[in-house]
Amino acid sequence: MSATVSEQGAARLLRGADHLLIVSHAAPDGDTVGAAFALGRAMQILGKSVRIECSDAIPHRYDYLFSGVKPQQFEPQAVVAVDIADRHLIGERLSAQCKQVLLCIDHHVSNMKYADHTLVDAHAAATCEIVARVIQALGVAFDREIASAVYTGLASDTGCFRYSNTTPATLRCAAAMSEYGADTARINKILFETVSLARLRIESGALASLELLYDGRIAMMTVPLELMKSADACEEELEGIASLPAQIEGVQAGITVKEKQPGFYKISMRTDGSVNASRVCAGLGGGGHPCAAGCEFRGTLDQAKAAIAGLVGKALLQEAP
Amino acid sequence: MSATVSEQGAARLLRGADHLLIVSHAAPDGDTVGAAFALGRAMQILGKSVRIECSDAIPHRYDYLFSGVKPQQFEPQAVVAVDIADRHLIGERLSAQCKQVLLCIDHHVSNMKYADHTLVDAHAAATCEIVARVIQALGVAFDREIASAVYTGLASDTGCFRYSNTTPATLRCAAAMSEYGADTARINKILFETVSLARLRIESGALASLELLYDGRIAMMTVPLELMKSADACEEELEGIASLPAQIEGVQAGITVKEKQPGFYKISMRTDGSVNASRVCAGLGGGGHPCAAGCEFRGTLDQAKAAIAGLVGKALLQEAP
Repeated sequence: MSATVSEQGAARLLRGADHLLIVSHAAPDGDTVGAAFALGRAMQILGKSVRIECSDAIPHRYDYLFSGVKPQQFEPQAVVAVDIADRHLIGERLSAQCKQVLLCIDHHVSNMKYADHTLVDAHAAATCEIVARVIQALGVAFDREIASAVYTGLASDTGCFRYSNTTPATLRCAAAMSEYGADTARINKILFETVSLARLRIESGALASLELLYDGRIAMMTVPLELMKSADACEEELEGIASLPAQIEGVQAGITVKEKQPGFYKISMRTDGSVNASRVCAGLGGGGHPCAAGCEFRGTLDQAKAAIAGLVGKALLQEAP
Repeated sequence: MSATVSEQGAARLLRGADHLLIVSHAAPDGDTVGAAFALGRAMQILGKSVRIECSDAIPHRYDYLFSGVKPQQFEPQAVVAVDIADRHLIGERLSAQCKQVLLCIDHHVSNMKYADHTLVDAHAAATCEIVARVIQALGVAFDREIASAVYTGLASDTGCFRYSNTTPATLRCAAAMSEYGADTARINKILFETVSLARLRIESGALASLELLYDGRIAMMTVPLELMKSADACEEELEGIASLPAQIEGVQAGITVKEKQPGFYKISMRTDGSVNASRVCAGLGGGGHPCAAGCEFRGTLDQAKAAIAGLVGKALLQEAP
């Protein structure tokens, strides 16, 4: 059983602990990394021994956070997990060290309460928003490093305050971090205005395949294996690409057909809400959410496109107002 | 001579006025339109007759603002200009009606003080940030419509809080507007996640021409007339496209060569600050800012590319640390 704790409760636990291992989730993003470095620095300011680890390598774009936490070697006595909804998301490399987790700080509604103590706020746009409140409860003064780490999480998980999870509290927290010295313009440039050449080549190639169907209400694009190879792109570089077709004016459903292996396709669907993507993808054995879903298909590319287009078209006729 | 007024001074002027024409600048953007609708609604709530006009058509993406201000027919007795730094930016259609401007509210440091009374705050990220303070000084309670209009300006002029002009005050103002009911998620989707098919086709075609030079320190792409025609794109749809090449990892200078007429090119240059774009473009008779500049070129496409690449390469060798 996990005990639910408040920010004050989490702060009491942390003040009583030392030689802490703070863990970010595998395949780390800006929120889990920002939360670890913000909390890590706050604890080091309190004189605690702290080490930050992640089962996977932390991407180089977050290098600016490393100066905030001194590297320290010691035998961990307690583990704190940040932004980790379930034990298996800790990842393989650290799973043995993280059998017992003292405290989990998280904003996922799906948190599995695997830690001895859990602080979850599903209304927070980012775990960093909660970590900022814990640091306040710890009585540590925010400095530029803590502020930059917290801001990294806020901006990452909200698409720079664009997504609907952004609340007035998120924006006020960002304002405070900016006042505490976070280099917001530089962080935004790193997070949102830097792309790899491979990603641009993939976008260019995929957009060239764009087709509009059903009077422009469906947009479909393909990402063949050949394009991935010629652009020298890895899977990571496809992140978010499936949202492109649905961003076109007037398009109600955007489809992306990605060739995973010859004759095997992954289909992603995004909608403006007027068509239920999850229901459409269920027709091909997939599923997801009303505005974002997916399924798989075996056959030729033309068969894959015809199958999904047929189902989407039918749904448009049935579901449109 | 223009008198400088405070928010309170502007509010006094507005309370004493009626039958107001509120004017947005020509080629309207989200800030000038948002400011006009926010102020227009506040004045109508105070019982004033207000009309909003713009020399150019207001783009359809701002249609959601129109419900906030009742259409009223009357002979204007006073003109208020919002986000208009200079008289000629009012545009041709309204220039005769705007010979005398009672009040100008603006955030451009370059404001020419052409109005009888001027309220300028060059530290404000958006004119809407100042208009929000004026509405507060007027004592009008913010409702969903005013909040949505103000938020539109804040988000527009900061690239959704990404650009370096974003201050803690901007973020706090956005937080307040969100609390007053602004539909931030919907507005963000309209402003930042909706693109035209023509724009995507232009991006795809331009990115296909991408070349990396000088060990990947220079990225260059071209937008030929033929691409504009085949994509059925207008000039407006090229907005911001010149920033793409400089966003590639490791690129210090991004160059976009746009064919304006056969044999006539417009060259745009963006840098990460390590090369002075303005100085480079001056070598071809152009100019601009250190990180964003441009010039023109007559000749063949290959000549244009060779000329600018040569100058940028030389600058890289001289200016790099």
